[in-house]
Amino acid sequence: MNSYYNKTRRSTVRRRAGRGRYDRATIDAILDEGLVGHLGLVSDGQPFVIPMLYARRPDGEVPVIYLHGSPLSRVLRTLASSVPACLTVTLVDGLVLARSAFHHSVNYRSVVALGQAAIVADPQEKLAALDTIVERMVPGRTADARGPSEQELAATEVVALEVREASAKVRTGPPVDASEDYPLEVWAGELPITTTYGDPLPDSRCSLPVPDYVSAYRRAHAAPDLA
Amino acid sequence: MNSYYNKTRRSTVRRRAGRGRYDRATIDAILDEGLVGHLGLVSDGQPFVIPMLYARRPDGEVPVIYLHGSPLSRVLRTLASSVPACLTVTLVDGLVLARSAFHHSVNYRSVVALGQAAIVADPQEKLAALDTIVERMVPGRTADARGPSEQELAATEVVALEVREASAKVRTGPPVDASEDYPLEVWAGELPITTTYGDPLPDSRCSLPVPDYVSAYRRAHAAPDLA
Repeated sequence: MNSYYNKTRRSTVRRRAGRGRYDRATIDAILDEGLVGHLGLVSDGQPFVIPMLYARRPDGEVPVIYLHGSPLSRVLRTLASSVPACLTVTLVDGLVLARSAFHHSVNYRSVVALGQAAIVADPQEKLAALDTIVERMVPGRTADARGPSEQELAATEVVALEVREASAKVRTGPPVDASEDYPLEVWAGELPITTTYGDPLPDSRCSLPVPDYVSAYRRAHAAPDLA
Repeated sequence: MNSYYNKTRRSTVRRRAGRGRYDRATIDAILDEGLVGHLGLVSDGQPFVIPMLYARRPDGEVPVIYLHGSPLSRVLRTLASSVPACLTVTLVDGLVLARSAFHHSVNYRSVVALGQAAIVADPQEKLAALDTIVERMVPGRTADARGPSEQELAATEVVALEVREASAKVRTGPPVDASEDYPLEVWAGELPITTTYGDPLPDSRCSLPVPDYVSAYRRAHAAPDLA
């Protein structure tokens, strides 16, 4: 579990090198917790960063990240043409309030993954990839929702980003102030950040009860009590 | 408030063009609600996407986004060398569960901002920019925390990204299913996503009460009640 994942010159964390992590388990766990990633591509020398739903393929020697969209999408067409890509996933865990403005920080876990992508042409892998993306939204959903028709499959492009190099960066814990600042009368500590789900809103034409797997998912992401 | 902000060929939303927004008010509101942005840069043809704290300068004809870090940071040095950059900010507002897997979606608000950056050399603007970044974390914090010393200012680089082109993309509302799918016995609707703050955790050397501005900020981001 702790094998290093292709730590190369350009994927090595330099600033705050102590926060760098390169093991597959850390990288996979961050990828599996995020919902929206930020995909970087270059077009005519200009970088573009596009938010996208994604899902990691659950198996494989090398991390593979599925992305999907319309076959007409510029982003997907560019991505599928074997250009260098970067997918970054960031989980923000809390604000870090230090006694000095200078030492303010954020607790976070992020992955920067570099690789190249190709269209998933195999129909079975394509279907499995789409299921993986829907299951990432709410576990249990694929068994309930109507699966894709032939026509819908044709109107969906799935792209697999093979990750060649990746690094994670993680900050946890309290602020670290300069020793001479600890006596200051300034509150210091962490303000944890959580992503929670509100009451499910059925659409106006739905009179069915909220399914158990939706309620369970929501409870698993319950908010902390407000004091 | 509704003037279009430099809608150019490359900043025009093509896929789901109906979700594209170009007015300053929408763009500024999304930038002001986000905490971490994703900065895209190119190095040797490879795009890199780096998560960064940012803050919008509150005034000005053109949107300006402040970023900061160590003067030794590769990212900041590259950014300050007038290369094309992209900063993307994404707010995820909810999962959209349709009757068909195909029509699943996410409610979100995002901004893609293209521009070039320069170091903020003026000491007063630099100090104001750092205050703006700290205030974005928790409003009221700059009046409490110790401000930066000369030495700390020298150890911090502030970069101003002048946004030349920008677009926002917004999805709201319920799922839109194919008309023949509405009779299906599948729950459909939205699962709203909220960012909430947990109990403040004072660091082990802090015995002061939680300041009012921290409690107020937390209440302003209270979680919805769990049914």
